[in-house]
Amino acid sequence: MTAETITAADTRINARWLIPVEPFGVVLEHQAVILQGSRILAIVPQAEADQSYRTRETLDLNQHVVLPGLINLHGHTAMSLFRGLADDLPLMTWLNDHIWPAEGKFVSEQFVADGTRLAMAEMLRTGTTTFSDMYFFPEVTAQAAHDTGMRAQICFPLMDMPTVWGSGPEEYLRKGADLIEQWQRDDYIMPAIGPHAPYTVSDGPLGAAVELAQQTGAAIQLHLHETAFEVAEAVKASGQRPLARMADLGVLGANTQCVHMTQIDESDLAHLKMTGAHVVHCPESNLKLASGFCPVQKLLDHDINVTIGTDGAASNNDLDLFGELKTAAMVAKAVADDAAALSAHKALEMATLSGARALGRDHDIGSLVAGKLADLIAVDLSDPYLQPVYDPASHLVYSNHGRAVSHSWIHGVPQLQDGRLTRIDVPDLVLRVNEWRKQILS
Amino acid sequence: MTAETITAADTRINARWLIPVEPFGVVLEHQAVILQGSRILAIVPQAEADQSYRTRETLDLNQHVVLPGLINLHGHTAMSLFRGLADDLPLMTWLNDHIWPAEGKFVSEQFVADGTRLAMAEMLRTGTTTFSDMYFFPEVTAQAAHDTGMRAQICFPLMDMPTVWGSGPEEYLRKGADLIEQWQRDDYIMPAIGPHAPYTVSDGPLGAAVELAQQTGAAIQLHLHETAFEVAEAVKASGQRPLARMADLGVLGANTQCVHMTQIDESDLAHLKMTGAHVVHCPESNLKLASGFCPVQKLLDHDINVTIGTDGAASNNDLDLFGELKTAAMVAKAVADDAAALSAHKALEMATLSGARALGRDHDIGSLVAGKLADLIAVDLSDPYLQPVYDPASHLVYSNHGRAVSHSWIHGVPQLQDGRLTRIDVPDLVLRVNEWRKQILS
Repeated sequence: MTAETITAADTRINARWLIPVEPFGVVLEHQAVILQGSRILAIVPQAEADQSYRTRETLDLNQHVVLPGLINLHGHTAMSLFRGLADDLPLMTWLNDHIWPAEGKFVSEQFVADGTRLAMAEMLRTGTTTFSDMYFFPEVTAQAAHDTGMRAQICFPLMDMPTVWGSGPEEYLRKGADLIEQWQRDDYIMPAIGPHAPYTVSDGPLGAAVELAQQTGAAIQLHLHETAFEVAEAVKASGQRPLARMADLGVLGANTQCVHMTQIDESDLAHLKMTGAHVVHCPESNLKLASGFCPVQKLLDHDINVTIGTDGAASNNDLDLFGELKTAAMVAKAVADDAAALSAHKALEMATLSGARALGRDHDIGSLVAGKLADLIAVDLSDPYLQPVYDPASHLVYSNHGRAVSHSWIHGVPQLQDGRLTRIDVPDLVLRVNEWRKQILS
Repeated sequence: MTAETITAADTRINARWLIPVEPFGVVLEHQAVILQGSRILAIVPQAEADQSYRTRETLDLNQHVVLPGLINLHGHTAMSLFRGLADDLPLMTWLNDHIWPAEGKFVSEQFVADGTRLAMAEMLRTGTTTFSDMYFFPEVTAQAAHDTGMRAQICFPLMDMPTVWGSGPEEYLRKGADLIEQWQRDDYIMPAIGPHAPYTVSDGPLGAAVELAQQTGAAIQLHLHETAFEVAEAVKASGQRPLARMADLGVLGANTQCVHMTQIDESDLAHLKMTGAHVVHCPESNLKLASGFCPVQKLLDHDINVTIGTDGAASNNDLDLFGELKTAAMVAKAVADDAAALSAHKALEMATLSGARALGRDHDIGSLVAGKLADLIAVDLSDPYLQPVYDPASHLVYSNHGRAVSHSWIHGVPQLQDGRLTRIDVPDLVLRVNEWRKQILS
């Protein structure tokens, strides 16, 4: 390497540790990540970077681990405004007596704009760079994510009954098609189709959703097998498990994300495997609503792609994906009766590359590889209570809280610098959130 | 009330919210907690305090919830120096191939002094005011806790085999009796007896432990029914479940704390109930080592006292009891198949008054009541990502991380002020911990 081959670039990040996720299970030390525009130009040892790159800016993250930005594959972002409004209740009581009435009364475009901003602030602060949303006024959420510069899959809601967002399936599908049309070629926004659940959407609208997905290439995300009750009721009424019905209707496929899946028998495994559908595991929501245990290790053993989501902050009650990973890894071991199940590195993959795969974006995001988009985060491990550091992957999953995330970039743009958000005015946001609190409590 | 009845006192804490734990389930607003010496003198509405008390100092904690200090009823504090050394391994592999060899090589008086200080710093930072320890060189841990001013139950270890601390049961019991003699009348230290587990202590030493407990009034804490394997092996060898053997030997009683208890059948329930023994639930350790699920709600339904512990930081991997409460509450719901199981308030009771009861100290600590010792904490709920606040109990258990703890007092002495430890030199501690890291990795 001679002086003539020095390459100019935007940003050099000197990382004490680097977990690129690809290759799997590796922790590199003293690497330099070179960013140019929206992409990762190179990842090389720091000594090599000294010889080969000259950058506009250099960050010395000498006590940090750098890894791909986290992908939160299921949530209802605006529900952050209902955080802690009703706890310690079963799913149907929680929905029927608390959440649905509150939604009917308060959810509006402004509610969604403010709630989404609160959720995005928390997600950015704790290391998420891409999220999936399924909520009313998806056009508002899409715009808010785009304006902030967060990558987001925006699933427009589809169900049989009227809501604040529309009169019924026909209107949802029409508005949804517009959403897909508007955002389909955007760098940040991935419009998608969000049939609520098999028990709230009948065959007609589901068929129309499949047709729309085929025409546009949009993904489908739906709540599926969330509880044993849901499956039992369906079997009682129709003789068929909901997943089998979805398979028959053509809903399952490599573009389909099945959220929750706490109930999985051999036929379900076969359907998931055959169709290439993805499972979105929401461990904290599943536990808190007593929905059940998703058999994560069993799915992994069958080569089914498992990703992770927080669900909404009304049933969790935070959007810290690192905390979710800790819960996922710990619970997977107890469920599998095997302490080696869902290791720290596997959990990190679940929240990054597996998520990218479910979004059909693993060529672009989900790991730190030269040529991919620059969606990455740094986590500061200098905290006294994270000492000693024997293995940074262990700390990220088992000892960490997401607040140790210090920096993030999305599409090459800095979103978090030394723990401060660059694109969201947090004090203003808190004022607005407290206005909502007063209104909801009055 | 007239001017003549004004009482002088040390400290007044104005609390936005107050969760006294007694009475159960109550959240009071705008209260003043008055401290005098080592005790709580009074808890009254702020307006009444203006009329009745004059204090040397006043703290306005206008965005905080004040509650009793947390009690961490099981741990091996010095193991914080092994945090993250070996993960994703089953209990016996983890013990035999990693932890026990590392202990044999490194554990010394200095190791215990430094590891205990690291653990105490993390526990104080996250709201624990009383902890229980079971580890080698208990005399070092007792002195360290006393010097720092933390309340601690110090269980001297007892097992059949020789360790760094002694040649066998006889020496452990002799040293243990000295420990009890030395600390028995101390304000802070509660010396106790720690038989490791039924599979590592034979009947002779267990009988001697019971005798020592009867003579001195010291409590007994032991690992019990941690895994299905432990119970199955005992039944295979002797025809008897370990808990039944403990009952026969007189180990179970109102002074006995049974740690883990993931395996509980009807006979176990009957033994626990009849003897008044306490259960120490360690949810994160049980999950991470795939030990099993403790049926917390079932125990509560049978009026068995259930308390909580983190276990050591080598199998958790943090000592944040608020995180442990979140895990405990979420997992209890899924295990009981009831989202109403282990509510937020019940979880807070488990970490405070239930712990005090297991220590035989509920007349003194565990709730905020005039006359009790001043062991209390304040948690700052002003964090943007804790908004909106509808119910502070919900946030403490479900949304919080222990770092939101801002203040604590133990025995009336401030230990944490605006998030800063008053009695531990953290930078010095980190230097020493990193020296240990180097030595252990070399």
